[in-house]
Amino acid sequence: MMRRTAFFISDSTGITAENLGRTLLTQFEFLEFNHSALRFINTSDRAESARRLIERAAEQDGHPPLVFSTLLDSATRATLQTAHCVYLDLFETFINRLEHELGVCSQPVRGHSHGLTDHEHYFSRMDAINYTLSHDDGCAVAHLDEADIIMLGVSRTGKTPTCLYLSLHYGVRAANFPITEDDLDEMRLPKVLLPRRTKLFGLTTEPQRLQKIRQERLPNSRYASLKQCEYEVRQAEALYRKFGIPCLSTTLISIEEIAATIVDMVGMECSRSLPTAAPLYSN
Amino acid sequence: MMRRTAFFISDSTGITAENLGRTLLTQFEFLEFNHSALRFINTSDRAESARRLIERAAEQDGHPPLVFSTLLDSATRATLQTAHCVYLDLFETFINRLEHELGVCSQPVRGHSHGLTDHEHYFSRMDAINYTLSHDDGCAVAHLDEADIIMLGVSRTGKTPTCLYLSLHYGVRAANFPITEDDLDEMRLPKVLLPRRTKLFGLTTEPQRLQKIRQERLPNSRYASLKQCEYEVRQAEALYRKFGIPCLSTTLISIEEIAATIVDMVGMECSRSLPTAAPLYSN
Repeated sequence: MMRRTAFFISDSTGITAENLGRTLLTQFEFLEFNHSALRFINTSDRAESARRLIERAAEQDGHPPLVFSTLLDSATRATLQTAHCVYLDLFETFINRLEHELGVCSQPVRGHSHGLTDHEHYFSRMDAINYTLSHDDGCAVAHLDEADIIMLGVSRTGKTPTCLYLSLHYGVRAANFPITEDDLDEMRLPKVLLPRRTKLFGLTTEPQRLQKIRQERLPNSRYASLKQCEYEVRQAEALYRKFGIPCLSTTLISIEEIAATIVDMVGMECSRSLPTAAPLYSN
Repeated sequence: MMRRTAFFISDSTGITAENLGRTLLTQFEFLEFNHSALRFINTSDRAESARRLIERAAEQDGHPPLVFSTLLDSATRATLQTAHCVYLDLFETFINRLEHELGVCSQPVRGHSHGLTDHEHYFSRMDAINYTLSHDDGCAVAHLDEADIIMLGVSRTGKTPTCLYLSLHYGVRAANFPITEDDLDEMRLPKVLLPRRTKLFGLTTEPQRLQKIRQERLPNSRYASLKQCEYEVRQAEALYRKFGIPCLSTTLISIEEIAATIVDMVGMECSRSLPTAAPLYSN
């Protein structure tokens, strides 16, 4: 099968170029691509090195590489466009259209989307991460009222990664609370959660998958038995129903999808959504 | 000032649409935009609701909203394109060009970039998160050899968020090790790190900023004094130089930039870079 190389080239983090480039390539997934991210291409030397890498890939593949670029500097772009490649400018097309529609010229500013812009917003994301880390697994209930969301679920349903993703990406202060077997037996919510019911969100998963995951952790334990997993999942789901807690199965969806679905379901976005950035811990 | 609304519309997580759309708008940051993400627009009902939201914004603003769309379904797209808006199709332009260049037709698959695709790759990211969480602040040295990178820095230089970002996004197993005052006084590395010197990476920051951050934590303490911050930063930087440890100042750059720079500097990417996803904890 023909194998081609795809380059994602940027003068900054490359997040935007990789993101759209990879998404576009998923529409051709019957083809094979080598992926290569070239970040911080912001000097003529680095542009020249990038150009040589593209030329080398063109020779090796016997086909011109695909270059997904978000470069803004015209000299740098010109250097790369001389390479034997398919140059896809992820910015220019839309910038021209936007300038036309808005009736103004753009002011090219490099790396602004994931760089230093909105300090206050960025600080709230860093703050959310710290909050989430210190409210993992119900280990701190003192500031539970400051949570935007309190994630419930039996052990190993993905509460922690989901909470981290919510805080890192959406600036959501996500606490995370385990449901104990006593709670499940009695079909009750931990007392501390009762006054905070509107903030609860439940995760669940298929018992078979849960068993597999737990089996890796504690092989052949009661904890990892299918019977136990089935019991816990059934009870947890019944508990969510009993208390009207919105819930999501993590069996077949990725952490990106879980987080976006939660943000969508509970309407936590707008001002807080997505990375615009500033220094760590700024204020 | 004219205020316009920008919609980021997707049939899945909306990550790609938001990412490129927001990046494009940063080039017009002298204008004001309301941002609105409409995710999981994957039924005719949801498309119709989205259309109505766009129409309402058009009326309120007195200008057609900008619509950044990654919708693939032609019926859904058609519904939205009837709205009074500037419809920017982030896919179509490039898909057509790619089809032409590759000489094949694409196979539209919804939400694949941040959905369920490469299970093994996704599992390694989830695994990296768990690794990073259990190797935060030097609290576990048992599996330090499994680290891809060991982050050093004095207290509050941003080690933890950086490690979490590296693991969540790049699947990098990032451990995190505090430098104690004794280490700084003696200008030595903790013993456990000596055989792992090639994996070390240092973070640093300006003493004034460090003081501000520490002041919030422990007001008027020795820990938060400018003198102490200056001493620790100077010593840590000298330590990095002494042992030839690559290092980065986090003062003026965002967590996205820090992580991308580290990945770039130590060449940790390729197969592991960036989100393609599958269920949490799959295998």
